[in-house]
Amino acid sequence: MSKRIEFWFSIGSTYTYLTVSRIAGIEASMDVTFDWRPFSVRALMQEMNNLPFVGKPAKEAYMWRDLERRAGRYGLPISLPVEYPLEHFDRANHVAVLGREEGWCEAYVRSAYGLWFNEGLAAGSAGNLEKSIADAGQSVERVLEAAGGEENVARYEAATDTARARGIFGAPSFVVDERELFWGDDRLEDAVAFATG
Amino acid sequence: MSKRIEFWFSIGSTYTYLTVSRIAGIEASMDVTFDWRPFSVRALMQEMNNLPFVGKPAKEAYMWRDLERRAGRYGLPISLPVEYPLEHFDRANHVAVLGREEGWCEAYVRSAYGLWFNEGLAAGSAGNLEKSIADAGQSVERVLEAAGGEENVARYEAATDTARARGIFGAPSFVVDERELFWGDDRLEDAVAFATG
Repeated sequence: MSKRIEFWFSIGSTYTYLTVSRIAGIEASMDVTFDWRPFSVRALMQEMNNLPFVGKPAKEAYMWRDLERRAGRYGLPISLPVEYPLEHFDRANHVAVLGREEGWCEAYVRSAYGLWFNEGLAAGSAGNLEKSIADAGQSVERVLEAAGGEENVARYEAATDTARARGIFGAPSFVVDERELFWGDDRLEDAVAFATG
Repeated sequence: MSKRIEFWFSIGSTYTYLTVSRIAGIEASMDVTFDWRPFSVRALMQEMNNLPFVGKPAKEAYMWRDLERRAGRYGLPISLPVEYPLEHFDRANHVAVLGREEGWCEAYVRSAYGLWFNEGLAAGSAGNLEKSIADAGQSVERVLEAAGGEENVARYEAATDTARARGIFGAPSFVVDERELFWGDDRLEDAVAFATG
């Protein structure tokens, strides 16, 4: 039986574009499956006063250049600049949470990231949601209503609590056996090696 | 002619232990040489209010575990915990600056890191300096006097100014052609690929 790795993500994290684009290839070639776990990295980072780019222009400029180079290394298209930070961060992630509940999370997230990084449509924006929810085979109207509902927002908060309990402080993060934590797209291979080793 | 990569470091950075331990093997197998450039990452991080671990216990706990796993992956010995942050950060780096001027920087830094991460002797401490400076073939008394002197401290500050001008905000960093910046031990291979590509 293939080993399960929790893939903790927030739509809004830039490096997560790389992971979302790479993960299917890794599942196809390695004996692992990923459990897509949307949560609010923004809530955890604010709690911890973890503000990687505020007042740090050199660090932010580096991040974009590094992201572009890493995308090139993986053969992924990328069209910079993109909207950042996302205006509709929570809305984008509420939809992912509903998608996880209903089984179409991965398709939605993959589309949302592709539109954001390649088509100039910010994740969580009306234009992005309309296309990405449809790409996941769902009714936009129904999903947007349910995603913002009390029950689903409570799921998002519960997921964020679980992420905090895992020791997560950033995204993307990978967790093996509910306790071994790996942070960053550049630790995806380390997580896979740990899970399969 | 082999391509030159600037290796910007501060003794006191934890992940730099990995780089210091790996770099000779990379020089031996790839067509690159590294120019060891000590500077004060602490000064730049304080300027930028870049405090990765202050008030972020989850992130710091993760860093130690990740460092231990990465050392394992590279087959490097590591004996945690170690003193952190370093009490004598500047003194440790002043010696590296003098070593660069006189041609024994790499030998000193390699020994200082080995003693810090394997023998429990914090870099910059009297016990570490005595051994690491001797390992570099130098007189401890002479070096400590010259390292703390005005001329050498000015070199350290000038190096930090150059690092800032390169866009550096953390350590270790690698710079190709004075402008293409890579940050972190986990970008060492990216820097080598860029330099040789």
